[in-house]
Amino acid sequence: MTFKHKIFNLVDENNKGSLPNRAFNIFIVFLIILNVTAIVLESFSRIKSTYSQEFYIFEIFSVVIFTIEYLLRVYTADFKYPSKTKIGSIGTFLSSPLAIIDLLAILPTYLPLIIPIDLRFIRILRLLRITRLFKINRYSNSLKLIAEVFKDKRSDLGVTIFVTFILLVIASTLMYYIEGQVQPDKFPNIIASFWWAVATLTTVGYGDVYPITGLGQFISGIIALLGIGLVALPTGILSSAFIDKINSKRRADVEKCPTCGRDL
Amino acid sequence: MTFKHKIFNLVDENNKGSLPNRAFNIFIVFLIILNVTAIVLESFSRIKSTYSQEFYIFEIFSVVIFTIEYLLRVYTADFKYPSKTKIGSIGTFLSSPLAIIDLLAILPTYLPLIIPIDLRFIRILRLLRITRLFKINRYSNSLKLIAEVFKDKRSDLGVTIFVTFILLVIASTLMYYIEGQVQPDKFPNIIASFWWAVATLTTVGYGDVYPITGLGQFISGIIALLGIGLVALPTGILSSAFIDKINSKRRADVEKCPTCGRDL
Amino acid sequence: MTFKHKIFNLVDENNKGSLPNRAFNIFIVFLIILNVTAIVLESFSRIKSTYSQEFYIFEIFSVVIFTIEYLLRVYTADFKYPSKTKIGSIGTFLSSPLAIIDLLAILPTYLPLIIPIDLRFIRILRLLRITRLFKINRYSNSLKLIAEVFKDKRSDLGVTIFVTFILLVIASTLMYYIEGQVQPDKFPNIIASFWWAVATLTTVGYGDVYPITGLGQFISGIIALLGIGLVALPTGILSSAFIDKINSKRRADVEKCPTCGRDL
Amino acid sequence: MTFKHKIFNLVDENNKGSLPNRAFNIFIVFLIILNVTAIVLESFSRIKSTYSQEFYIFEIFSVVIFTIEYLLRVYTADFKYPSKTKIGSIGTFLSSPLAIIDLLAILPTYLPLIIPIDLRFIRILRLLRITRLFKINRYSNSLKLIAEVFKDKRSDLGVTIFVTFILLVIASTLMYYIEGQVQPDKFPNIIASFWWAVATLTTVGYGDVYPITGLGQFISGIIALLGIGLVALPTGILSSAFIDKINSKRRADVEKCPTCGRDL
Repeated sequence: MTFKHKIFNLVDENNKGSLPNRAFNIFIVFLIILNVTAIVLESFSRIKSTYSQEFYIFEIFSVVIFTIEYLLRVYTADFKYPSKTKIGSIGTFLSSPLAIIDLLAILPTYLPLIIPIDLRFIRILRLLRITRLFKINRYSNSLKLIAEVFKDKRSDLGVTIFVTFILLVIASTLMYYIEGQVQPDKFPNIIASFWWAVATLTTVGYGDVYPITGLGQFISGIIALLGIGLVALPTGILSSAFIDKINSKRRADVEKCPTCGRDL
Repeated sequence: MTFKHKIFNLVDENNKGSLPNRAFNIFIVFLIILNVTAIVLESFSRIKSTYSQEFYIFEIFSVVIFTIEYLLRVYTADFKYPSKTKIGSIGTFLSSPLAIIDLLAILPTYLPLIIPIDLRFIRILRLLRITRLFKINRYSNSLKLIAEVFKDKRSDLGVTIFVTFILLVIASTLMYYIEGQVQPDKFPNIIASFWWAVATLTTVGYGDVYPITGLGQFISGIIALLGIGLVALPTGILSSAFIDKINSKRRADVEKCPTCGRDL
Repeated sequence: MTFKHKIFNLVDENNKGSLPNRAFNIFIVFLIILNVTAIVLESFSRIKSTYSQEFYIFEIFSVVIFTIEYLLRVYTADFKYPSKTKIGSIGTFLSSPLAIIDLLAILPTYLPLIIPIDLRFIRILRLLRITRLFKINRYSNSLKLIAEVFKDKRSDLGVTIFVTFILLVIASTLMYYIEGQVQPDKFPNIIASFWWAVATLTTVGYGDVYPITGLGQFISGIIALLGIGLVALPTGILSSAFIDKINSKRRADVEKCPTCGRDL
Repeated sequence: MTFKHKIFNLVDENNKGSLPNRAFNIFIVFLIILNVTAIVLESFSRIKSTYSQEFYIFEIFSVVIFTIEYLLRVYTADFKYPSKTKIGSIGTFLSSPLAIIDLLAILPTYLPLIIPIDLRFIRILRLLRITRLFKINRYSNSLKLIAEVFKDKRSDLGVTIFVTFILLVIASTLMYYIEGQVQPDKFPNIIASFWWAVATLTTVGYGDVYPITGLGQFISGIIALLGIGLVALPTGILSSAFIDKINSKRRADVEKCPTCGRDL
C-alpha cells in the first residue's frame, strides 16, 4: 500500500475499517463541535472582548487543520472518484456537495486577506460537516432511508411546494389590496404582505402583522385552514413513502413458494 | 391538416408533440411570470410612480396577447371538445374551469372601459394560469396523483370540514357569551369571535385576540387541542389515500399465478 | 298503517324512503340553520335592539316546532326502540345522545320561566342537531368511517391524551417555579401556568404569556418540540386506522382461491 | 407463601391478580392525584397561607407512605429482579427508571434536612408515578404499543431530532448576524437567537421576537416552511411504524396454506 493510499484510508469518510481512520474522523467531528461552540460563545460581546485572542488562535488552528485535511482529500481524490485523468477525479471531488461545504468552512477565514468583506458568519456552515458523524455510526441507515424517501417523492413534494408558492402569492396580493388601504404601514407592498402570508400559512402567527378588516380576516382564516392542508399533504406523501419502503423490504425478505416458484 | 387544425396544435395545452407548441406554451408561461412580477413591483408606490407608463404599455401588450390566445382557443374549441354543434363545443369550453380562469385574467383590464369599478387586483389570478406549466413537464403525474387523492377522499375531507365548521360556530358563540362580557372590544359579536376561533383552531394564534377569563381559557385550550385533531384527521385520510394509490399500482403490476390463474 | 306509525315515518331521522319524511327533515335542518343565523345576528347589539321583537317571535315559533317534534318522537319512541314496556322505550329514547341534544335545544327557552338564570347561549347547541343533515345524504358513510376510526383507536388516543395531560401538568409546575419568580403577574399560580403550557404544546402561542428567563425558555422549547410529537402521534394512529379500514374492505372483496379454498 | 412473598404480591405493580394488590395500587394512585392537587393548590398564595399547616401534615403523611412503600420494594427486590446476590437484585431495582422516579418523589422532602436548597418543586415528578395507573387497567396494551413504536423507530426519530438541531443552530447564527445589527435587544447573542429559532420552527410564534429586516424575514419564512417538514417527517415515521405493527399482527394471525405448508 503506497503512502498516498495510506493517507486516503486515513482521511476518507466512508472507510469504517481502520482504527486510525475512526480516530481521525472523531477528532474532526470533535473539532467541528468546538468550532460551533466558539462561534456561539463569540456572539456574547463580553466573552468575545475578554477572550478575543484565544478565539483568534483557536480559529487559526482550526482552519489550518481543516485546510490540510481538505488538501489531502484533493490529493487522494483519484481513489475516491476513479477517472481517466487526475484532473477529472479532482474536478468530480471539488464539485461534490460535501467538498463544497468543506470549502465554505475554511474560505471565510481566508477571504478577508483578499477582499474587505466580513463573511465570517458563513463559518457556521462548518456545522454541516457534522454529517460526517452519521457516516461513522449506526444512524447511517436511518439517514439513508430518510434521504431515499425524500428522493423518491421529490416530484410530489415539489408540486406541493409549487402550489404552496402560488397560494402564497395570490393571498399576498389580495391582502395587499384589502388591508393595504387601512394598514398601509403593515401591508405597504406585496413583498411585505408575503411575510404575513408565510407566517399565516405555516401557522406561526407572530402577531406583528394581522388583518383587521372583515374581508381580510376572512381570507386570513381561509389561508390558515389551507395551512392545515399544507401540513397534511407532505405528511401523507412521506407516510406513504415510509410504508412503501418497509413493505418493499419485507417483500424482498419473503421466500419463494415451492409449488409454483413464485413469491408467496 | 387545415389552417384551423394547425392553430389548434399550436395553442392547445395538452399537445406535447410539436416544437412550436412547446415554444408557444413556454412563451405564455414566461409572460404570466412577467405579469405577476409586474403586479408585485407595481405594489411599491415609488416604482409605480416612476415607471407607470412602462407598466401600462406592458399591461396592454399582455392583455392583447392573452385575448388573441383566448379567441384562438374559442375558435378551435371544436377540436378540444368535439360536439354536434359548434355552439355546443364553445359552450363546453367557455364553462371549463381553465377557460374561466383565462377569462378572469383578461377581463379586469376591459371592465373599467364599461363600468367604473377597479377590479385590477383580480389580475393576480393570471398566476393560476401557470398550472399550464405542469402540463408540459415531468410534474404532470404528481399533480394528477395529488388531484386524484383529493377527489377520492372529497367525501371524507368534506365531512371533516363540515365538523370543523360546526365546532368553530359553537366555540365562537360560547366565547362571545363568556369573553364578550369582560372584553367587549375584542369579542363584540359572534363574527368577531369566529376570527378568534379560526386563529386558535388552526393554531396560528396571532395574539390580537385571546381569552382572559378562566372559563374562556379553558374553552380556548380545548379548541387548541382539538386543533391537533383537525390536523391529524385530514392527514390520516390523505395518507391512507396515497398508500392505497401505491398499493393499487403495485397490485396492477403483479403477474398472474400459473397454477390457479389468479393474481398472486 | 296506523296514524302513530305514519307520524313515526314522518319524524324519524333514518327513514330515507318517503318524500314527506325527506321534506320534514329538510325543513328541520333549514329551521336549525335559521336559528343559528338568528343567534349570530342577535350578537350584534344594534341588530338585536332594532329587531328584538322579530327575534323573539322567531324564537317562540322555533321552540314550538322543536317541542312538537320532540314530543312526537317521544310518542313514537316504541317504534324506534322496541321494548317490552312503553316506559322502557321512552327511557331508551330520552337517554340517547341525540335526544339529549334535542332537549338541550329547547330547554333554555323554557328555563327562565322557572328559574331566573339566563342559559340562552346553550341554544347554540341546536347546531349539533344539524348532524341530522348527514343522515339524509351521501356523506353518511364518511361520517360513519371517521366515527369508526375514532372508536377503534379510542384506547390509543386515550393514552395519548393522558400522557399529554401529565406532560402539561409537569411543565406548568416547573414553569410556575421558574418564571413565577420574575413574572409573578404572568405565572401567579399553576393553573395560570397551565394556560401557557396548553398554548405552547398546541403551538398556538398567542404571545400573552411567554418565558423570559433562560431556563424557562429552554423548557418552553422542549415543550414546543414535544408539541410536534403530540401532532405526530395521533396522526400516526389515525393514519394506520384509515389504512387498516381500506385494507380490510379490500380483503373482504377478494375472492377465494379455487385450489386451496382459502382467500388469495 | 412467606411473609416477604406476601408483601411483594401486595406492593408489586405488575401483579394484577389479587384484590389487596389492586386496592393498594389504587390507593397509591389516589394518593398521587391528591399530592398533585395539593401542589397545584399550594401555588395559590392565598390558599397556601390559609392552609399551610394542613398542607404540611398531608405532605409528611404522603412522604411516610411513599417511603415505606419504597423500602418494601427494595426489601422485595429479589422477587422482581432475581439475581445471584441480594445486592445485585437491589442494585438492578435502584437503577431501574421507575425506582429512580419513586426516589425523586420522596427525596425533595428529606433534602432540606441535610442541605439548605429548596427542591420542593421536584415533587411534581410524583405525577410520573401515575404511569402505575396504566399497569393496572385496559390501557396497558395501548401504552405498550406506543412505547414499542417509539423504540422501533428511535434511530429514525433520532436522526430527525439531530437534523432539526443542526438546522436550529445554523438558523440562529444567521439570524444573529442579520437581525442582531438592527434589533440588538432581541437578538443579543446566538443563544437568544436560538429561542427565536425554536419558536419559529415549531410554529409556536409567541411574537416576542421576530425579524424586521427583509433578509431576516426571508430566512424566517424558510425556517417556518421547514417547520412543516419537521412535523411531516416524524409523523410519516410513526405512521409507518403503527401500520407495520397492525400488519405484523395480522400476518401472525393468518393460518398456514394446506397445500404448501407456508403462510398464505
